[in-house]
Amino acid sequence: MKPSHIDEKGRARMVDVSAKAESEREAKAYGKVTLSREAYAAIKSGDGPKGDILTVAKIAGIMASKKTSEIVPLCHPLAISAIDIRFEYRDRQRAIEVFSSVRCRARTGVEMEALAAVMLASLTIYDMCKALDKSIQLGPFYLLEKSGGKSGGFRRQKAK
Amino acid sequence: MKPSHIDEKGRARMVDVSAKAESEREAKAYGKVTLSREAYAAIKSGDGPKGDILTVAKIAGIMASKKTSEIVPLCHPLAISAIDIRFEYRDRQRAIEVFSSVRCRARTGVEMEALAAVMLASLTIYDMCKALDKSIQLGPFYLLEKSGGKSGGFRRQKAK
Amino acid sequence: MKPSHIDEKGRARMVDVSAKAESEREAKAYGKVTLSREAYAAIKSGDGPKGDILTVAKIAGIMASKKTSEIVPLCHPLAISAIDIRFEYRDRQRAIEVFSSVRCRARTGVEMEALAAVMLASLTIYDMCKALDKSIQLGPFYLLEKSGGKSGGFRRQKAK
Amino acid sequence: MKPSHIDEKGRARMVDVSAKAESEREAKAYGKVTLSREAYAAIKSGDGPKGDILTVAKIAGIMASKKTSEIVPLCHPLAISAIDIRFEYRDRQRAIEVFSSVRCRARTGVEMEALAAVMLASLTIYDMCKALDKSIQLGPFYLLEKSGGKSGGFRRQKAK
Amino acid sequence: MKPSHIDEKGRARMVDVSAKAESEREAKAYGKVTLSREAYAAIKSGDGPKGDILTVAKIAGIMASKKTSEIVPLCHPLAISAIDIRFEYRDRQRAIEVFSSVRCRARTGVEMEALAAVMLASLTIYDMCKALDKSIQLGPFYLLEKSGGKSGGFRRQKAK
Amino acid sequence: MKPSHIDEKGRARMVDVSAKAESEREAKAYGKVTLSREAYAAIKSGDGPKGDILTVAKIAGIMASKKTSEIVPLCHPLAISAIDIRFEYRDRQRAIEVFSSVRCRARTGVEMEALAAVMLASLTIYDMCKALDKSIQLGPFYLLEKSGGKSGGFRRQKAK
Repeated sequence: MKPSHIDEKGRARMVDVSAKAESEREAKAYGKVTLSREAYAAIKSGDGPKGDILTVAKIAGIMASKKTSEIVPLCHPLAISAIDIRFEYRDRQRAIEVFSSVRCRARTGVEMEALAAVMLASLTIYDMCKALDKSIQLGPFYLLEKSGGKSGGFRRQKAK
Repeated sequence: MKPSHIDEKGRARMVDVSAKAESEREAKAYGKVTLSREAYAAIKSGDGPKGDILTVAKIAGIMASKKTSEIVPLCHPLAISAIDIRFEYRDRQRAIEVFSSVRCRARTGVEMEALAAVMLASLTIYDMCKALDKSIQLGPFYLLEKSGGKSGGFRRQKAK
Repeated sequence: MKPSHIDEKGRARMVDVSAKAESEREAKAYGKVTLSREAYAAIKSGDGPKGDILTVAKIAGIMASKKTSEIVPLCHPLAISAIDIRFEYRDRQRAIEVFSSVRCRARTGVEMEALAAVMLASLTIYDMCKALDKSIQLGPFYLLEKSGGKSGGFRRQKAK
Repeated sequence: MKPSHIDEKGRARMVDVSAKAESEREAKAYGKVTLSREAYAAIKSGDGPKGDILTVAKIAGIMASKKTSEIVPLCHPLAISAIDIRFEYRDRQRAIEVFSSVRCRARTGVEMEALAAVMLASLTIYDMCKALDKSIQLGPFYLLEKSGGKSGGFRRQKAK
Repeated sequence: MKPSHIDEKGRARMVDVSAKAESEREAKAYGKVTLSREAYAAIKSGDGPKGDILTVAKIAGIMASKKTSEIVPLCHPLAISAIDIRFEYRDRQRAIEVFSSVRCRARTGVEMEALAAVMLASLTIYDMCKALDKSIQLGPFYLLEKSGGKSGGFRRQKAK
Repeated sequence: MKPSHIDEKGRARMVDVSAKAESEREAKAYGKVTLSREAYAAIKSGDGPKGDILTVAKIAGIMASKKTSEIVPLCHPLAISAIDIRFEYRDRQRAIEVFSSVRCRARTGVEMEALAAVMLASLTIYDMCKALDKSIQLGPFYLLEKSGGKSGGFRRQKAK
């Protein structure tokens, strides 16, 4: 069994999607940013009236998601229809959870775009808070679900 | 106490580094990609003679690191002197660990560039292996150490 | 009534166009660059044999228009079919008028691409003439008309 | 007298700044977005608790400013030290005024970066409000002042 | 007879493809990199176990091909389906030959994408070997064949 | 002897330039575009009054040169001081020769920027003339000379 981006000689390749039919694709991804007590409190309270940190992170995630084929070498360029990102505070874990959802009518799926969205939104939270806490931990990041395309759907199993 | 990218009114801002002196900066970051047993085995063996997956991942990480100021909204553009990325296989954890090191003579640090390097290298591993395993987990990612600049050094404490 | 890029909680979002049908879209935009007497004369005459300033401005406008979804955060990436930009000298006003027209088969309109074209063409004129005149005024810029899509056409009323 | 970006044969060129000394540069630019009564009211009120429209516009302006040398053909790439953008509501004119300030230690000035910041912030306001008002007018945009460099300072005269 | 990108007044333009039907397009291009005896030997042997130079060159060619509409001013943005690049060593000529193949369902052809792929892959070989040999010669580069679209196919004649 | 971008294990790397001193760097490169009799005549005459093809090609070359570190994976980002490109018609060879010159104060040379300039200017000529002649040949491209830096100068020997 071989990774799809590796040809029979072990060389990297871009998968040829020209024979695939266009269909509606959707993918959702998850990410988590864990902060120190102090940084978590500062962000959550500072985020009160203006919400700037999370707005900036959201915009960063959306813009990076549109750029996925430019930053992941073997990804196909896609005309994305929608990208959404939302955040949830988890006080007990001192964590911000990040959820993305990406839609597109295309010949290939949008998992990479969904993952790029959560990862760059998280990296932007790090950037804005790094003066408070240099030990911020980014991740885990993973695919939650995808639909559309011949390979059918995928939904990540809970318990982890 | 406030995140540095938030002004006194709670609005996002780009930190003004014009008064800082240039100095040699270095930052190192860490990341981890955890795979299914099957995917881990396929990659590790497929990686034998040609090493393509990790070479592609390394190139992706280097190119993304150079683009950090373009994908993280409030980062400063920097003329990076060196970016290095290396990988280690961890059989027991079925994981690939990713280590980056970035150097620059600049008015601001290169943590973001080091983190972008490990995150995009990891995302590229995901891309190349996603046909084998859709549950690949990316992360955690964090800063290992940094040096240079007035704020002095930082070294992450062990024991996670 | 709410701006379309703001959700019910007041947060920015990318409008989901996945349910819209593809149709032929066209948009035209207008812009104006007003110069000092001296700069206007220099450009108009220097522009005689070679036309370089306006050619450079046109190329800049076309390239920026193709990049619209990269520079306007919530715009959708589109596979533009055609971008045209033309200029007219207005001696009495010492102004160069800029007209763009953009066409695309897409699920969303191309107003933003038409506006990006006139604005970046104008900014490039500024760049090339700024040594002559630092008081160059850019604008107004506005949409002239658009067609295609469910919301129907739009044509700006005269009288400015 | 010739525009600086035109050589003696009338051909466009990139000005050679290699003989100039590095110095601290600063530039400030101005822009204005005029809306219909309805759109102005919607934005100003919607902007109450969350401020998302102006935050998105600010981020867009900052990111475009960092990209100036990529979108204006003959601009030099610069390692910008700081970019700031702020907005003011003008009820009587139903307008949002946009002010940018850019700083850099460089061999050439940062006017173009300051103008790119106000223009793309304004274009992003247009994008977010275009469903409410297709007649939004962008501009005028102009340089307010600059300092640094051999040519000395510039300050735009009032009386608009 | 006029180049297609020049209008009746001699001005550059982006060809309007909105009236063309979408069809499957393919294009193949060729390139060649000629090295000194010493550099050729070093690369060919160094390329033994890991193949890094050609993998990096391949990735560079694929990524540049996806960026064609961003670096060639009047090219249309396209959602490429597949890009492949392969290399052949020519010992007698001390040359590496580069072959690209690009596929897309689009309103316009993909010759430019195929040429960008071989040219940037070659430039990347130059970059990695320039410390060994500053006289590396890049080229010739040309289109081998194309198919799809109304103008029908093209196949370059041999004899050279 | 090893290519500089390959480490002792045969893996690609970005050369660390942090220990090098900044100095004035210059590089000049050469390229050639050979056309059919018909296409050459059309371009040369069409180029009479307006010069658009070569202006567009020049702008493309300058913009690509500024993007070199983005399209060549292991190149360092540099704050280029000047890029110049000029063209010469060679009637007997039905060829357009392309000459670039790039200057920068940096820790590493600008050969890659000079080569990117001639290659992308040439590719743009191809794009604008491809409707007239699909057999246009691009190349050879090579470095003419470089100066600055510890390794000293280089000047290509004549006699091709």
